[in-house]
Amino acid sequence: MNKIRVAVLGASGYTAVELIEILLRHPHASVVAATSRQDETKTLADHHPRLRGRITLQCQGFSVGSLVDQNIETVFSCLPHGASASAVAQVLQAGMRVIDLSADYRLKSHQDQELWYGEPHHDAVNLKHAVYGLPELESHQLAGARLVANPGCYPQSVILAMAPLIAHGMIDPQSIVADCKSGVSGAGRTPKLTTLFPECNESVSAYQVGSHRHTPEMEQALNGLSDSQCRILFIPHLVPMDRGILATVVATPYEVPTNEKLYELFASYYSSKPFVRIVPTLPGTKQTSHTNFVDIHPIVARGRIVVVACLDNLIRGASGVAVQNFNLMHGLEETLGLLP
Amino acid sequence: MNKIRVAVLGASGYTAVELIEILLRHPHASVVAATSRQDETKTLADHHPRLRGRITLQCQGFSVGSLVDQNIETVFSCLPHGASASAVAQVLQAGMRVIDLSADYRLKSHQDQELWYGEPHHDAVNLKHAVYGLPELESHQLAGARLVANPGCYPQSVILAMAPLIAHGMIDPQSIVADCKSGVSGAGRTPKLTTLFPECNESVSAYQVGSHRHTPEMEQALNGLSDSQCRILFIPHLVPMDRGILATVVATPYEVPTNEKLYELFASYYSSKPFVRIVPTLPGTKQTSHTNFVDIHPIVARGRIVVVACLDNLIRGASGVAVQNFNLMHGLEETLGLLP
Amino acid sequence: MNKIRVAVLGASGYTAVELIEILLRHPHASVVAATSRQDETKTLADHHPRLRGRITLQCQGFSVGSLVDQNIETVFSCLPHGASASAVAQVLQAGMRVIDLSADYRLKSHQDQELWYGEPHHDAVNLKHAVYGLPELESHQLAGARLVANPGCYPQSVILAMAPLIAHGMIDPQSIVADCKSGVSGAGRTPKLTTLFPECNESVSAYQVGSHRHTPEMEQALNGLSDSQCRILFIPHLVPMDRGILATVVATPYEVPTNEKLYELFASYYSSKPFVRIVPTLPGTKQTSHTNFVDIHPIVARGRIVVVACLDNLIRGASGVAVQNFNLMHGLEETLGLLP
Amino acid sequence: MNKIRVAVLGASGYTAVELIEILLRHPHASVVAATSRQDETKTLADHHPRLRGRITLQCQGFSVGSLVDQNIETVFSCLPHGASASAVAQVLQAGMRVIDLSADYRLKSHQDQELWYGEPHHDAVNLKHAVYGLPELESHQLAGARLVANPGCYPQSVILAMAPLIAHGMIDPQSIVADCKSGVSGAGRTPKLTTLFPECNESVSAYQVGSHRHTPEMEQALNGLSDSQCRILFIPHLVPMDRGILATVVATPYEVPTNEKLYELFASYYSSKPFVRIVPTLPGTKQTSHTNFVDIHPIVARGRIVVVACLDNLIRGASGVAVQNFNLMHGLEETLGLLP
Repeated sequence: MNKIRVAVLGASGYTAVELIEILLRHPHASVVAATSRQDETKTLADHHPRLRGRITLQCQGFSVGSLVDQNIETVFSCLPHGASASAVAQVLQAGMRVIDLSADYRLKSHQDQELWYGEPHHDAVNLKHAVYGLPELESHQLAGARLVANPGCYPQSVILAMAPLIAHGMIDPQSIVADCKSGVSGAGRTPKLTTLFPECNESVSAYQVGSHRHTPEMEQALNGLSDSQCRILFIPHLVPMDRGILATVVATPYEVPTNEKLYELFASYYSSKPFVRIVPTLPGTKQTSHTNFVDIHPIVARGRIVVVACLDNLIRGASGVAVQNFNLMHGLEETLGLLP
Repeated sequence: MNKIRVAVLGASGYTAVELIEILLRHPHASVVAATSRQDETKTLADHHPRLRGRITLQCQGFSVGSLVDQNIETVFSCLPHGASASAVAQVLQAGMRVIDLSADYRLKSHQDQELWYGEPHHDAVNLKHAVYGLPELESHQLAGARLVANPGCYPQSVILAMAPLIAHGMIDPQSIVADCKSGVSGAGRTPKLTTLFPECNESVSAYQVGSHRHTPEMEQALNGLSDSQCRILFIPHLVPMDRGILATVVATPYEVPTNEKLYELFASYYSSKPFVRIVPTLPGTKQTSHTNFVDIHPIVARGRIVVVACLDNLIRGASGVAVQNFNLMHGLEETLGLLP
Repeated sequence: MNKIRVAVLGASGYTAVELIEILLRHPHASVVAATSRQDETKTLADHHPRLRGRITLQCQGFSVGSLVDQNIETVFSCLPHGASASAVAQVLQAGMRVIDLSADYRLKSHQDQELWYGEPHHDAVNLKHAVYGLPELESHQLAGARLVANPGCYPQSVILAMAPLIAHGMIDPQSIVADCKSGVSGAGRTPKLTTLFPECNESVSAYQVGSHRHTPEMEQALNGLSDSQCRILFIPHLVPMDRGILATVVATPYEVPTNEKLYELFASYYSSKPFVRIVPTLPGTKQTSHTNFVDIHPIVARGRIVVVACLDNLIRGASGVAVQNFNLMHGLEETLGLLP
Repeated sequence: MNKIRVAVLGASGYTAVELIEILLRHPHASVVAATSRQDETKTLADHHPRLRGRITLQCQGFSVGSLVDQNIETVFSCLPHGASASAVAQVLQAGMRVIDLSADYRLKSHQDQELWYGEPHHDAVNLKHAVYGLPELESHQLAGARLVANPGCYPQSVILAMAPLIAHGMIDPQSIVADCKSGVSGAGRTPKLTTLFPECNESVSAYQVGSHRHTPEMEQALNGLSDSQCRILFIPHLVPMDRGILATVVATPYEVPTNEKLYELFASYYSSKPFVRIVPTLPGTKQTSHTNFVDIHPIVARGRIVVVACLDNLIRGASGVAVQNFNLMHGLEETLGLLP
């Protein structure tokens, strides 16, 4: 099989370098172009010294024509919200397939979009055909997809923690409280005061309590699993570490199960999913770092169900799941490039 | 005024060194004895190099007779659970006053004690007279106390976050979920695998979900503020930092207040308390580190009340509040040694 | 004694908040003004949430007239290089005394200034009268000083490590290699890529090898102790921690001493200095954090002398020594505000 | 090609888990046995939760007979010093090949052994045939080796930094000062006070100044490149990060080269080595983390040569180079399992 020629848009950030490292290990993909809005004369290795000697690509400015000339088949967009939709629309128009790591094509509801983003969708036309790329829930639709909306890091942790319970109608869908803790790389690579080392080291803080834009993404995915309407109180926190998300999700069960039955339910629900591990003890984010795994431990506590889920926000939360989606889009083995 | 002669039991740990540093700044206290179960030939500076040149005390083994001979008036016990009660009983018997930083005298209910600790109280006799030393709630009783049960680090963060709401009957007392994040010093100074640097650095994890022994302490204190029975789902987490606790406490209000009214309620409730700051933005633990402050920010989010509280687990969570209690026991200014 | 009225210029940075915290504890100083180039409508607590409730000062733009109107007697400048000299000249002109925490008045030699900074001194007039404020070496001149050049963080660690050896003519002054490791707060509070959390966490790196501007400051101070000409190879490193500097300084002795004699030499040299501790074991920066101490351990190893020195870069390296200088300038006890 | 059946001795530590992860990606190796001195009933995933679902091996106690029965061809020993030689001797006797990650077979000189370890070699018989496995220097001998002494993490960083200079006779071999900074995982997984999170977080310290046992290993390897006798002053430091070593090595050149010539010398010396990168800017350890690369930047500064080298102490410093050696022993491509 020939290697699929791919391009990475927005190559200077943290998700891009992780993506490129995975693709370098991928037997059926070849990174032949990388764009960067700034410093276009830099090589990938200038942006990311860890890539030196492994890929010699020069960054280029974004140009659809150039991508066409280079026979790109699939584009990964690591561009920020808004900027991504604008590039993606052009790329789709030119016949390439796209995995969009931004939030631009995740929300289907125009109402949610207006409510949480305060503006209409940037590209309502392509939105209709976008497939939400959480492979554990959507694997069938991914096969033929031309545009995949790669899921958010926080949403994946919360959705996968709650999916078995919602699908089986076991919890009050209005009762969900998701207290999530993220490493600092989740805030991106643009220098700002809040992510300066001496600001966030030796400190934990909550932010955007109940108002974070990942909330409707969680609710949309979970609502798709049953008739019920979820209302999630999502509380993100910044934790002094590079990478990792731990989601501690609490819900009120209609009937309190035993720990054994609860565990069995989760194990069974994800039995065929290579990247979801139901683990027998409370997990730490470190056990998933630099992997595409989501580790989940459900437990009954004081009449509630508590599900603790963790993942690497850069791999499973972004670039790893993007490659998982890439594999499924192209009819490849789901684990290629991600597991030996 | 003569300096009050104090002793520190269990001087080799993290709370002890913080306590000694505060007492060195205290105008009316003098540390004249320090005990350590092991390495009794060591000086305090051998255990804690930061004390070198500031105090020359040699550690001694625990002996009530020796404390009497040294004319100790007040004893701070930094001994672990169980060991503390045994020493405290002797010290009280000999006429000294005690501030116990362990959990030994916190729970009043024998039922709770049996349920959460699996054994009866170690010293039921003195337990009756012990005053729970959360000064913002108990300042009157502290004045004459001979035995103060210094409050736990986690409990203080949760109790102070919920007290105004419980006292005013604003929330369903059965709805409280307390997701707390602590720095690693909270786990003590005894080497164990779970607190080794490469185990907990770059990782976040939950532990003892719903089963942590600090739970009944929280419930007892809050139940003391009203007729209602609290049930708290307390979920502690370990975060890769030295010190600090952030409590994110969620409760269901009977009636959803405005943010302004909620803020005003908290500001008013704690208006006369020098160490509680109701802050206008979401706090990070770092802004309280190395201080005795508790910073609290209450907010309404998606129909719930979320209160974020933070403190330094070693100072406000242990040694700072111990000195605050010491001041109140002795009729001194509450802030001595803790604020300029 | 009336409190001395002081102002802090450049109040939004890391050294300023540490300075203000120390001054709040100082019995004879009162912070009555604070300037900030940006966000002049902010309070100090807006810039530094840890100050909330402890000082209510509003930041103001810099204006000498305003400082005069407020009867300021002494100004601490935390402004950056260049900007500081410009403000300091005006402040001195108006009759106030100054402690300048920038590098602007440290180098006496115009040749060094040109060589290392590539430009002449900003204020050669006042430079002549500036006293280099390393109190362990210069305590006499400080008494009457109207302008003190507060020493650099790195230079203090290296100068104090080498001073006894140079003063006694024990080492080849051309042989000094100073490998220094600093926490990230040393790089200031302005957001930049290199000090973003995910860039410097989990990483150590060297920078400005042999070309750092603190080099001539070290050489000037050591040359002042003897006839010899020092040449120091200074290699600074960035380490993933908030605060602290560890200097590992290697020099070739003319004659190799015993460890005992070496230790005794250091202990004797600093015997009357309250903030220098010659410690019996290799120190870690943490044992000096949040203090004004410099901990030094000299040792003979493989024919060389190795001196390990550490200090808190924000306290001893900047704001603590500034207050030490303030005390000496005003004829106060050297340790006021810094030790109980 | 059939997979080579390998066993890992001492599987509970940090190097073992890294080794197993690499071997899981290796196309020609299969981990079929793992031993652990304690908790022999545990699975690998119990020791290392990140391995869950990826390998199902149960740990076993060490028994040569059992390894023979399982048709092991090559054994990796991650056992500690002393314990390793004892197991290795038995394994070799039974005809298996060995890569020993301990220090047991590194020092050839009995004099050095006695001097630095205070005792004779544990297995002088096999020592004679042991090949020191630093592939960039010894690739020819590795081809037929039956026992490879895997090199130390610190030594590799210093040897590779100095090899081109020593080989070309450019520096005074008695002038080398190696100031090295290591992450905490280098200290192993056995709980001890010095590697507890709150002890080493927010702190840097030097240890074993001039007396660390890795010193003679460095000198032996460099002496093998020329006639000269090196004397290295090696000063290791502990830095608050999980992994990574940065070596800042200073030497006095006989004649000071230009930076360009120096860089060219290094680039040329390592031009055929896939895992050594001569990089154009000062490297940070992070750019090599989780890789088998050694990044080196040589520079002239104040009349000295300074070489900064960095590597991942667990991968390149131990398990990665072990697999590199494994590949070379077995006539496989050097980069298998380590680069795509």
